Order: sequence, then structure tokens, then C-alpha cells
Amino acid sequence: MPQQNAFYAQSGGVTAVINASAAGVIETARQHPAHIGTVYAGRHGIIGALTEELIDTSQESAAALARLAHTPGGAFGSARYQLPRFEDNRAPYDRLLEVFQAHHIRYFFYNGGGDSADTCLKIAQVSAHLGYPIIAVHVPKTVDNDLPCTDCCPGFGSAAKYVATSIREAAFDVAAMARTSTRVFLLEVMGRHAGWLVIGVSEGLRQPDGTFVATAGGRDAFGHAHLGGVVPILAQRLRTALQLPCHWAVLDYLQRAARHLASQTDVQQAYAVGKAAVEFAVQGHTAVMPTIVRVSDAPYTWTIGMAPLEEVANREKQLPGAFISADGFHITPACHTYLAPLIQGEAYPPFKDGLPEYVTLTNRAVPKKLHTAFTL
Amino acid sequence: MPQQNAFYAQSGGVTAVINASAAGVIETARQHPAHIGTVYAGRHGIIGALTEELIDTSQESAAALARLAHTPGGAFGSARYQLPRFEDNRAPYDRLLEVFQAHHIRYFFYNGGGDSADTCLKIAQVSAHLGYPIIAVHVPKTVDNDLPCTDCCPGFGSAAKYVATSIREAAFDVAAMARTSTRVFLLEVMGRHAGWLVIGVSEGLRQPDGTFVATAGGRDAFGHAHLGGVVPILAQRLRTALQLPCHWAVLDYLQRAARHLASQTDVQQAYAVGKAAVEFAVQGHTAVMPTIVRVSDAPYTWTIGMAPLEEVANREKQLPGAFISADGFHITPACHTYLAPLIQGEAYPPFKDGLPEYVTLTNRAVPKKLHTAFTL
Repeated sequence: MPQQNAFYAQSGGVTAVINASAAGVIETARQHPAHIGTVYAGRHGIIGALTEELIDTSQESAAALARLAHTPGGAFGSARYQLPRFEDNRAPYDRLLEVFQAHHIRYFFYNGGGDSADTCLKIAQVSAHLGYPIIAVHVPKTVDNDLPCTDCCPGFGSAAKYVATSIREAAFDVAAMARTSTRVFLLEVMGRHAGWLVIGVSEGLRQPDGTFVATAGGRDAFGHAHLGGVVPILAQRLRTALQLPCHWAVLDYLQRAARHLASQTDVQQAYAVGKAAVEFAVQGHTAVMPTIVRVSDAPYTWTIGMAPLEEVANREKQLPGAFISADGFHITPACHTYLAPLIQGEAYPPFKDGLPEYVTLTNRAVPKKLHTAFTL
Repeated sequence: MPQQNAFYAQSGGVTAVINASAAGVIETARQHPAHIGTVYAGRHGIIGALTEELIDTSQESAAALARLAHTPGGAFGSARYQLPRFEDNRAPYDRLLEVFQAHHIRYFFYNGGGDSADTCLKIAQVSAHLGYPIIAVHVPKTVDNDLPCTDCCPGFGSAAKYVATSIREAAFDVAAMARTSTRVFLLEVMGRHAGWLVIGVSEGLRQPDGTFVATAGGRDAFGHAHLGGVVPILAQRLRTALQLPCHWAVLDYLQRAARHLASQTDVQQAYAVGKAAVEFAVQGHTAVMPTIVRVSDAPYTWTIGMAPLEEVANREKQLPGAFISADGFHITPACHTYLAPLIQGEAYPPFKDGLPEYVTLTNRAVPKKLHTAFTL
């Protein structure tokens, strides 16, 4: 394909390392000027494409991109926004292609989880169907670690390292206090119902009847129940039933934002899938996702593979039953072997004046070419 | 004073750096063999003295003490235990002196906050009154930063660094999500009502009528209300009143246990007050506390001073009104000047297999010499 522009967007909940993937995409695209002109980022994800709010990443210096790779959050804004089914409402697809054509965009890089993989697949299919084929490559990202086809998901290792460290540290605290004060410490973690961030109390803990113990109220744009707030309820039950003094903590966003304690393995993999996405695209692959392939456990080695999005989209990989001991209270050696490499290595960000030095990009807007608004 | 033994105890809520003070006490005592024989630590603080559950710290290797200095929690166990007034009940004082005499203990190092400073003072006074004078030196420690006479309190700087980093990281996350999802992120932090850990929502937030918004239930041994759980209540109010999508986190013990992100300044000061306590004691000072004296703001320099416990005990240093802006929403430049040096520098613990490598001491029990039990 002759030189065309690319569109990159972040989708769903952000992580400590999604910006490392962004840096991987943008820096690698800059190395392929014969294929890719400018990488435009969507301001707040796919919404930026629909509203023609594009960000010109060529305005960012190499130094800013280097800092982007160690900055948490989503540098261009993310979105929880689900496209309708093409058969139900084709207007958003027509609009996307209108915007992409106006800006000579032929590459679509979508950085998200299972729902985003589905969107990415649709865009590959629909664009071909409508006669303006887009090369659409999904860049995996989720702290929930629930994407199929890949050994792990960028974002998970860092969240797991932070949660495991926090648990270890809290355990030292509680051990010191247990004689006269707190006997039980409850830590609520993310991970939804796939069960990967299993240490502590999963926000997705269910009652025997299958309902969630706690829902924070409402559902998101994908129809998923908002979870959060299970440990105050459990703490109250423990105090009442067992008369045990309890303390509890809820990490919520902190566990997916804690770039200060990222896993080096995770940071490297997040960058690698961004880089591979661009390389796959310039080779002409579409409707695919770079995967992380485990080559060996000890020493841990990995490489990048490729999965078709038909096999990725809308499929949730749950924690294997064989990873939990028969009594339900421990992880098995197989689980430890799987998890241990994912939290290896520290990748501290630089600090200045006592705080991590994260970058806020200039996020220069691309002048609009269309004179039509789009209502979300 | 000819060679005698020492007693060291940790009191109240532990911190990320209280063990650095312990290391300072024990390592420095080892450098004064002419004065101090063995440092016995109380198993679970002062309770260990009352029940004659002493720990022989001479069994710990130099390598173990070096690791102690970067381990969170309280290595010998802490306690929330308030001695009665001597006039009301002298039995605990008689018992303490009985245990100290039996083990040739003439030095008492108490590592805690304001309540502990009061206990330390009482022990100095009562022991002299009863004819077995104990050299009692208080070692300051509290994440609440509310001790008078000292520029800051060991434990506070590390908690503040962790909280400030967490807030910064969460802010990057929320900024990315705000278009379609979370608009408000509430972080509940410790600090009781002194107001020092002011970023986020203080657990000690009061209603206009002066009552706390949230009490986690009950009071501790000192009669302080247990605080915790204010942000779920505020989040519910925000959702109802402003229809704003909220996320919230409660750090609880994590903020005082997060040794992985300790302030180097704080670690150094925690060690220094432990070291100075021993040096003061061997010089014969009693009923005193080492203080941190700020020499200059920029560059930040500090030294160790000494305060009489009469001026420390049971006095709470609140955040000065001049540290909060007139609108109540910001800190003033004076506050920034005060706080900034306290979070300076990173003092990462060593990591192994992806997790911080903390030490659990052997905590060898000292054989009991008394044949009497003491009921707490």
C-alpha cells in the first residue's frame, strides 16, 4: 500500500502500560515512512474518530514519546463506547469511513480488550464491504487478563505486581497489629469475574445464587455491571459473625494506574505488541492481533505471535480451574509457574521533586475537514 | 552508668519506616557495649514487657538488621495499649519495673506517637519515684505527623509520597476516562483529624455539626474513634446530588505499609532518630525525644535536636491554618515549602522474583525469669 495515514485509539479502562503500547505504535510507525504518513490518535478513543477530533501525534517529540512509554493512564483519552451492530445501525460505520477517507487513513490500530477486538474486526469487515478497506489491527490491553489466544495481556502483570506487593506489605502491618487490634485485612481488587487478580477479594465475588455481592450502581456502555465496594460489606459480616476487628482497602483505579511499580516484563510486552501491530499492518495483515507467546517458563522467554480477530473477539479466557487448589484457598504450582514471570523486573519511572515524572502530551488537534457534526 | 540492658518497643499503628528506627536503635546500641548489653524488644510492644515476652535482638545478624531497615510493619509486633494513670492503678508500673529489674534493663526506648510519649514520660518519672530509675527516651513515629517540637514525624513523609503518587497516577487515569465514564475519583487517606495527609479525602472529615462522616465502628484502646469508610458515603452523595459517575478507593493500611515507595528523606530521618535516642540515653538524658530540626528549606537540610517529653506528651500539632488557601481547596506556598522536602528521594527495597524482599526476624524469646503471670 502506498503511504497512508494511521489512526490509533485507546479503548476501555486504561492501564499502567497502555501508553507503552501507544509509544510502540507511534515510534514504529515513524520507522515506516514508506507506508505510514502520520499517526492520528483519537481524542477519547473511537469517539474522536466519530466526531473528527483527531490528534496529530507527529507534533510530539521523540523525547515526549520516550516519556509516554512510562506514563500511566491513556494519553489521548479512552472511551467506553460500543459501536452498534452494523445490521442495526450503519450510520457510525459510514461516519468512521467518511472521516478516515477525509484524512487519508488506511490503518486502524485499536488498543483495548475483548469488546474492542470485536469493534476492530467489524471495522476491517465493514470497510472492505463498503469499498474502502482499512487495515485494522488490535493491540491487546486489559488488567483483567481475559483475552484468548495470548499467553497474557499487557496491563495485567503490572496490576498483579502492585496488588501482590500491596498484599505483602499489608500483611507485615497486620501481623504487627494483630495482638491488640486488626486481625483481618480485606483488600478489594479488580479483575471482574474472570478471576485473574485472585489475591485478596475479587470485586466480582458472587453470592451462592450467582449474583454479585456488590455492584457500585448501574452498568457501563457495554452492559457490564459496575463492580466495586464488596469489602466493606464483607468486613461488616466478619465483624458481626466472628467479632473480628477488620480493616479493609479498595484499590480501584490505583491498581491499574500504579506505573511507579510496573512489571518490567509487562512494560516490555506492552511496547512489543504496539510495535508488532504496526509491523503486521505494513506487511498487509488485517483483522489480526499480536499475541504474547510463552516459549519457556524458566528461564522465562517469550515472542510475539499473531491471532485472527475472529478467534479473539468477545471471548473471555477465565482462570483455569487447575490453577486453584482443591480447598479453594490457594493457587497451584501450575498457577505460580504461569504468574511468576509476569511480575518480574522493576521499571521505575524517573522521579522529580519526589514524584514520578509523567508526561502530558500537547495533543495538538488536526484541523477538521468535514463540515458535519456527528451526534453520539 | 555501667553496662545494663535496654528495652525497645513499638507502639500504635506501624509505618513504612518504623523498622528503620528499630534498626537505628539496635545497631547503635551495638556500638556502645560499654553502656548497653543486649537490646530486648517487646513482643507486641509494651505488652511484651508486662507479660515478660522479651525478644533477644542480639540473635539477629547484621545482615538481618540491614534488611530490617527496609521492611515495613513492626518487626517485633506493636500494640495499642494504654497504661492507666499511676495514681489510679500502679500495678502495671510495679510489674514493668519487676520485669526490667529481673532482666537488668535500665534503658527504655519507646517508638510511637503522642500517647506513647506520655507513657515514656510516666515510666521515667515513676521509675525514679520507685527507686529504680530508668532512662526513658521516646523515638518519634506517626504517619499523622502530629507530634509537637519536631519539624516532622518519621512515617509521614513516606505515606505522603505514596498518597501523592497515587493521586497523580489516578488523575492520569480519570483524565483518560472522563469523557464517557468516571468524572470524579475519591481517595480516602489516613491522618485522623490533625489534617496532615490532606490530599484526597481525610478519613477524619467532619460534618458541619462536628461529628465524623464515617466511623468504622468502635474506639481503640486510647478512646480514639476508629475512622474509615468515608468515601463510599461521599460517592453515594455525589452520585445522587450531582449525577456524576464516581470511582473511589480507600488506602487504609496500604499507605503506611507501602515501603516500596518510601521517601528517602523519611527513611534517613527514621534511622537517625533511632540512632540519636541511643546516643542521648548513653549520655544520660532521660524523658526526652530526638526531634528533626529543619535547618534550611532549599537546599533542604536538617539535623537532630532534643525535646523534653513534658513538651511532647499528649499534645497534637495540627496543620497550620496558614497552610490552606483562603478558598479551602489548595495548599499555600508555605505549605508546599514545608512538605516538598519530606517526600524527596526514592529508597527502593531490593526485589526478588518480582516482589520486595522484606525480612521476618527470628524473634528468639528471652527465657523468663519471673514465675508470675500478669493479666492485661
